[in-house]
Amino acid sequence: MEILKVPVGISNRHIHLSQEHIDALFGMGYSLTKMKDLSQHGQYACEETVTLIGPKGTIPGVRILGPARKASQVELARTDTYKLGVNPPVRDSGNLEGTPGIDIEGPKGLVHLEQGVIIATRHLHMSSEDAWKYSLKDGEYLRAIVPGPRGGVFGNVLVRVNPNYALDLHIDTDEANAFGLVNGQQLEVYSINDQFNVAR
Amino acid sequence: MEILKVPVGISNRHIHLSQEHIDALFGMGYSLTKMKDLSQHGQYACEETVTLIGPKGTIPGVRILGPARKASQVELARTDTYKLGVNPPVRDSGNLEGTPGIDIEGPKGLVHLEQGVIIATRHLHMSSEDAWKYSLKDGEYLRAIVPGPRGGVFGNVLVRVNPNYALDLHIDTDEANAFGLVNGQQLEVYSINDQFNVAR
Repeated sequence: MEILKVPVGISNRHIHLSQEHIDALFGMGYSLTKMKDLSQHGQYACEETVTLIGPKGTIPGVRILGPARKASQVELARTDTYKLGVNPPVRDSGNLEGTPGIDIEGPKGLVHLEQGVIIATRHLHMSSEDAWKYSLKDGEYLRAIVPGPRGGVFGNVLVRVNPNYALDLHIDTDEANAFGLVNGQQLEVYSINDQFNVAR
Repeated sequence: MEILKVPVGISNRHIHLSQEHIDALFGMGYSLTKMKDLSQHGQYACEETVTLIGPKGTIPGVRILGPARKASQVELARTDTYKLGVNPPVRDSGNLEGTPGIDIEGPKGLVHLEQGVIIATRHLHMSSEDAWKYSLKDGEYLRAIVPGPRGGVFGNVLVRVNPNYALDLHIDTDEANAFGLVNGQQLEVYSINDQFNVAR
């Protein structure tokens, strides 16, 4: 089988907001301003940022990703959580039940988010066509091999398939920095049952 | 063979100083104050800290580890290097040729370190007795298996054997945070030629 190589996309801490929270933070009926498109179709980084306020510290300049979502969601790296004093679980995007909340400050107001803070599960976005080509299914897990002096293996890479997805392995800044990875770097990925026997 | 499990020791950014630099930063003939012993015999964290000043930013409160060494050495996580604006290589402790320098500020003076900033190679301290017991040699490389939702494998774990070493797998804060590890957590380690075929 052809070896699958995928580009790394490094996610800095960011926030997705509901329209209700956009209104509360930026003023009623406010519309976010697109700064640049992201690799995933229809997703974009906004000009606007917010300040996160935790029990132990604050982080200003947290980028908003658009468009508005049904529920607000804050995605942090573990390093950020120590600074803020929150202890979110590792979760797939959208799976927010029982996650901690946080205070969010915008130019026009404050929002107390009841829940929605997570550390995102590392995941691989993939089109239906690529999934078919590489015999992979939505929801299965892969390993990604990292070469170099700080090399190793990322286990538990969740495959997310959608007709509109572009091939992109999303990791956070802690994961990138630990393994010395840069945006766009190509990594080989393998099914867990492939030639690697490192499951524990 | 018995499976080797080793405790993780997470190194925050820190600095080792020469007596010449201790004198320059804290005053002539100054003696560092032990705060607590570290896992390795004779090594200790000091009450004293310094401020690192890079081209892009500063980090205050950087812990000094004693005793004094022949050459000063700054050990950072990649996350720190972005804040400071320096680009050190991944190196074994003491191998400082060609590494970048940095400015160091203490209560009594400033030192411009010409070289000595590194990101430390992950490594496993081990006594000669343990090395014999597990058939391992100083200078060889192991893999460490990380369980859990953020699990994976650390490749290239350098074995360092010394009669006085205590068993301890030293990783930095980026590596710990990326894999959700805590101090003292036990990880299984394997020789590269053991049952794992993930070398690339």
